[in-house]
Amino acid sequence: MTTFRNWLLLAAGCGLAGCAASPAPAPLTPPPAAAPAPAEAAKPPVALQYLYGSPEAAALVRATNARIADYGAWRIRERPKDSVVLAPGATMDAPTFEPCGSKPFAAVFDADETLIWNLGPMRYFAEKGTAFDPKVWDQWEKTGAGKAIAMPGTVAMVNALRAAGITVIANTNRTAAAAKGSEDTLRAAGLGEFRHGETLFLMGDDTGGSSKDGRRRAIASKYCVIILGGDQLGDFSQQFNVKDLPATQRMALATNAGATALWDKGWFLFPNPVYGPWEKLGWGDAFPSDKKWEPK
Amino acid sequence: MTTFRNWLLLAAGCGLAGCAASPAPAPLTPPPAAAPAPAEAAKPPVALQYLYGSPEAAALVRATNARIADYGAWRIRERPKDSVVLAPGATMDAPTFEPCGSKPFAAVFDADETLIWNLGPMRYFAEKGTAFDPKVWDQWEKTGAGKAIAMPGTVAMVNALRAAGITVIANTNRTAAAAKGSEDTLRAAGLGEFRHGETLFLMGDDTGGSSKDGRRRAIASKYCVIILGGDQLGDFSQQFNVKDLPATQRMALATNAGATALWDKGWFLFPNPVYGPWEKLGWGDAFPSDKKWEPK
Repeated sequence: MTTFRNWLLLAAGCGLAGCAASPAPAPLTPPPAAAPAPAEAAKPPVALQYLYGSPEAAALVRATNARIADYGAWRIRERPKDSVVLAPGATMDAPTFEPCGSKPFAAVFDADETLIWNLGPMRYFAEKGTAFDPKVWDQWEKTGAGKAIAMPGTVAMVNALRAAGITVIANTNRTAAAAKGSEDTLRAAGLGEFRHGETLFLMGDDTGGSSKDGRRRAIASKYCVIILGGDQLGDFSQQFNVKDLPATQRMALATNAGATALWDKGWFLFPNPVYGPWEKLGWGDAFPSDKKWEPK
Repeated sequence: MTTFRNWLLLAAGCGLAGCAASPAPAPLTPPPAAAPAPAEAAKPPVALQYLYGSPEAAALVRATNARIADYGAWRIRERPKDSVVLAPGATMDAPTFEPCGSKPFAAVFDADETLIWNLGPMRYFAEKGTAFDPKVWDQWEKTGAGKAIAMPGTVAMVNALRAAGITVIANTNRTAAAAKGSEDTLRAAGLGEFRHGETLFLMGDDTGGSSKDGRRRAIASKYCVIILGGDQLGDFSQQFNVKDLPATQRMALATNAGATALWDKGWFLFPNPVYGPWEKLGWGDAFPSDKKWEPK
């Protein structure tokens, strides 16, 4: 935490723009009523600055990708008995998995904010100061090729897995109706070929809606899945997204012994503070009441 | 990316509060002029929700801590020749390091948002809707014991390193003037004893101001430092924080071959989208102009 202390240096006259050693404090303040229109905001929102702009996030993502590539190469030295896709009805307390058999190896990734960063619409929404707009997103799925980028180290990771004989598959909640746009977007980002129905699984491919469980199971019926990668827990199991699951239980599930044995050992998480299911958390969810503190 | 698609489900009548499978979209919109006062904001800012509240961040941090503990145990099986503290004048292109000699092993961590989450003042600033206030932070350093928490998996990580005979040291830009408060805060979080001048290094310990390089060097003169951990690049080398360093060069330095060889192999990054030196990045820094996109 260099920032807070450095506020003093800033206040002492160290100009913001030229003061790399003295970063500005977090913009925790919403703009006052008299602030300029959102479209004229001088800077992106803080979560977007961090994820899409900071070397801190870039280095973290790059290291995660390197870890995935290393893990893949190591994992296939001996054929594992099980996929890392949970079996139907499996719980996180004592997880059971789809069998590998003699199936070919695969690594399954979410697409958005896992393989690619959606710079086009994220900038658009933020600059306009508008909330997410499904009609805009539909256009993005269809026409975004060339305006998304592979995340740091992702091209190298995907290439390393493929070179090792591991099929790389995307399982995303982009729609089947826009399959070609998503194929084009992944290709234009330098990630090679993803083919709908073969290596690209989309919402609408089955009757499961936004649950990826059915698609994961379909993939695991043909492949020994050694890697799952995503930015949200739903990229690993729909049981984290059960309707009305209290925040404390979701947290407990994701950090219990069964899950902990999987993180970094088959299940790989990418940071995404920009959007996610945690957006419904209230003050009490993020800040336990016994940690309340005020200055005197 | 479950979120964007699920907006459709929300719009179709799936109530926000009870719809764990259908998270709300990112609150990219600043509150309108008629919004309630910041103190009454229904939810924390999105970056705080993610970092302090989400199982996605908790699992990621926990896995990082497990990786550090594993790395420490592995690294001391054979004595390394070098510390992971850069030698004076070392560049990231061809880094050279402080020698290990026969010195005892140490792991050196930043404190804030690396060992502990500062829930007390972070909630206070966000609820008040105020920017960072150095006077408040000074009080926090002195009186915050019990209101910060160890990050997920950090107590286990610290205990594992110590059990392996690795001294755990904090190098933070909290001030030497508030040393006792920081010692108390770390202890109350369950992290054991950090002693100023021995295992706790603070701003004011030398003449380097907010640069941690001098303190790192002082530590490396007594220890073989096998691990550096932090949430910002300044926790690894001050060369990332050189005054007027352009954002593109900072990015290049942190992701070149020299740095890439260190991430996860001695240098460990924790996610912190809440505050950091990247807060000065403008639109063009986070979003290359050739990735601009608009719907028709």
